[in-house]
Amino acid sequence: MPADKAEAVAGILVEGDLMGHTTHGLHLLGGYLREIEAGTMQLHGGPEVVADAPAALTWDGRRLPGPWLVLQALEAAAERARRMGTGTVVIRRSHHIASLASFHKRATDQGLMLILACSDPNAASVAPFGGLDPVFTPNPVSAGIPAPGLAVVVDVSTSATTNGLTNRLHAEGGKLPAAWVIDGHGKPSDDPGVLFKEPKGTILPLGGLDSGHKGYGLSLLVEALTGGLAGHGRADPKEGWGATVFLQVIDPAAFAGLAAFQRQTGEVARQCHASRPSQEGRAVRLPGEKGFKLAATQRTEGVALHAGIMESLAPWAQKLKVNPPASR
Amino acid sequence: MPADKAEAVAGILVEGDLMGHTTHGLHLLGGYLREIEAGTMQLHGGPEVVADAPAALTWDGRRLPGPWLVLQALEAAAERARRMGTGTVVIRRSHHIASLASFHKRATDQGLMLILACSDPNAASVAPFGGLDPVFTPNPVSAGIPAPGLAVVVDVSTSATTNGLTNRLHAEGGKLPAAWVIDGHGKPSDDPGVLFKEPKGTILPLGGLDSGHKGYGLSLLVEALTGGLAGHGRADPKEGWGATVFLQVIDPAAFAGLAAFQRQTGEVARQCHASRPSQEGRAVRLPGEKGFKLAATQRTEGVALHAGIMESLAPWAQKLKVNPPASR
Repeated sequence: MPADKAEAVAGILVEGDLMGHTTHGLHLLGGYLREIEAGTMQLHGGPEVVADAPAALTWDGRRLPGPWLVLQALEAAAERARRMGTGTVVIRRSHHIASLASFHKRATDQGLMLILACSDPNAASVAPFGGLDPVFTPNPVSAGIPAPGLAVVVDVSTSATTNGLTNRLHAEGGKLPAAWVIDGHGKPSDDPGVLFKEPKGTILPLGGLDSGHKGYGLSLLVEALTGGLAGHGRADPKEGWGATVFLQVIDPAAFAGLAAFQRQTGEVARQCHASRPSQEGRAVRLPGEKGFKLAATQRTEGVALHAGIMESLAPWAQKLKVNPPASR
Repeated sequence: MPADKAEAVAGILVEGDLMGHTTHGLHLLGGYLREIEAGTMQLHGGPEVVADAPAALTWDGRRLPGPWLVLQALEAAAERARRMGTGTVVIRRSHHIASLASFHKRATDQGLMLILACSDPNAASVAPFGGLDPVFTPNPVSAGIPAPGLAVVVDVSTSATTNGLTNRLHAEGGKLPAAWVIDGHGKPSDDPGVLFKEPKGTILPLGGLDSGHKGYGLSLLVEALTGGLAGHGRADPKEGWGATVFLQVIDPAAFAGLAAFQRQTGEVARQCHASRPSQEGRAVRLPGEKGFKLAATQRTEGVALHAGIMESLAPWAQKLKVNPPASR
């Protein structure tokens, strides 16, 4: 991989592990290497411009590495947001983009707000509410919000759980914390195994059995922002593991000003922290807070990788003649 | 109220009842009339421009009627979206804006996508996940998505339920369909009464007990888009019932084109409808479908108003010397 792309992908993957998102960090590297070997991840050149409006760009990502494409899109969108108020980049045919939470600090450090959402038209594990047949990927929505002190980083799938977690728990023989899946007959379950048995079960939309219509609605919104605006998705032939990306940068300076923005986000953050905990000793946190604190510690003390990650990379290290780092 | 504002407010309220959103239709009219009488809803003039960037406008709504302000904002945002790709209008100090779902058809009929979110900094009934003290209103997010045939209209609160429903069920002595609230000690409950007893309970974020961190994250996103960008909200003195509004129009023609957009949204809609129902006889629907079909029927056969609405308006009809319409 050319050095700039390698640096972008490595940086975003390690950022995932630093923040504790262990299903979306180096856990993905083996899969990415397999895709490069198979020729289904492209390495050279840049995206093609599909459309270009003053505040909106549409790219064909040509199956280039997702983290690199998203960082390019972030730069383009930030430049437009500074002139226009908002800047939006939609990317069809990106390869997988890793952890959405890993990108936000690069926007919030500049006083910009970032909204990032994606879907993968090549896969489906989430059924529409009330249905048995899957239509959606977990279609995450994430946002980076500049706030005084630590930025707020929201990163939520619009489904009850993710493919990353159900795959891992199934492999490890674990159970989900609640009935986040249904089996192939529609029966709720906390066993990720129902996704792997015939007739295949599905992941419920966010909100689960009593409020899944809400997650379903949000999944449809993400499909429209990604596949709809990109003009490429579930109506097209499958091309393999990838992502369709919606990225929007909003410049608070173009609205009521960054100081006014942070005055409000700071007050909301203060009120959240001041809310008495419903369980003694478990103080209310802001989204991203735990990840940023963990990242700061792990940057000095070393990154704790989830079990199996180094082992899964050992054959690749051997094949590519790279010395795997020793653990600290 | 001047005729243009009266027409806007009446149109949006009746649209709510037509679509079956009976807590956000004419149910609100008595409250609006009280606010006019008290001088807390303004009737004359227009919004003040706080900031103006090519793709982003910020208004002070001067506590003018919300439905009228939102329709003005929709027009301004649509005009900018056609030139820039997207157009965003943020409004501080709007009065209440009624049902978000009532606005979308006016955008989707023009082939435009609309995202609408709001919060009310004057009230708080939803606690951050893991907390006892409320910080948020139900902070809804809604979207209108042009699709072949009926538009898709998503309208979801980022809380487990709404003030409208809990107020009504409490008054009627009813229960919620699931444990969407917690009492003042953090105990989950389906009794809306816990919101009215000391120590006061709160509405859970969307996702409830096992996934409420997701709704909490989305509530924070809505606070940033509304109070943050508007530079007015929870850090300021309360002014009474109102709304801070984020409205964004996205023009698919500026991305990959409206035909390509509808090809994808049409295919996703088709797949949802084709998903076998998990409960026999209960076909999968798209968000907005039930509302649009009900509206079409009620437009010809008459609108069924929720019990108590006409009775609550009778004293106002008498006071304002208006003949209330007879039921059909």
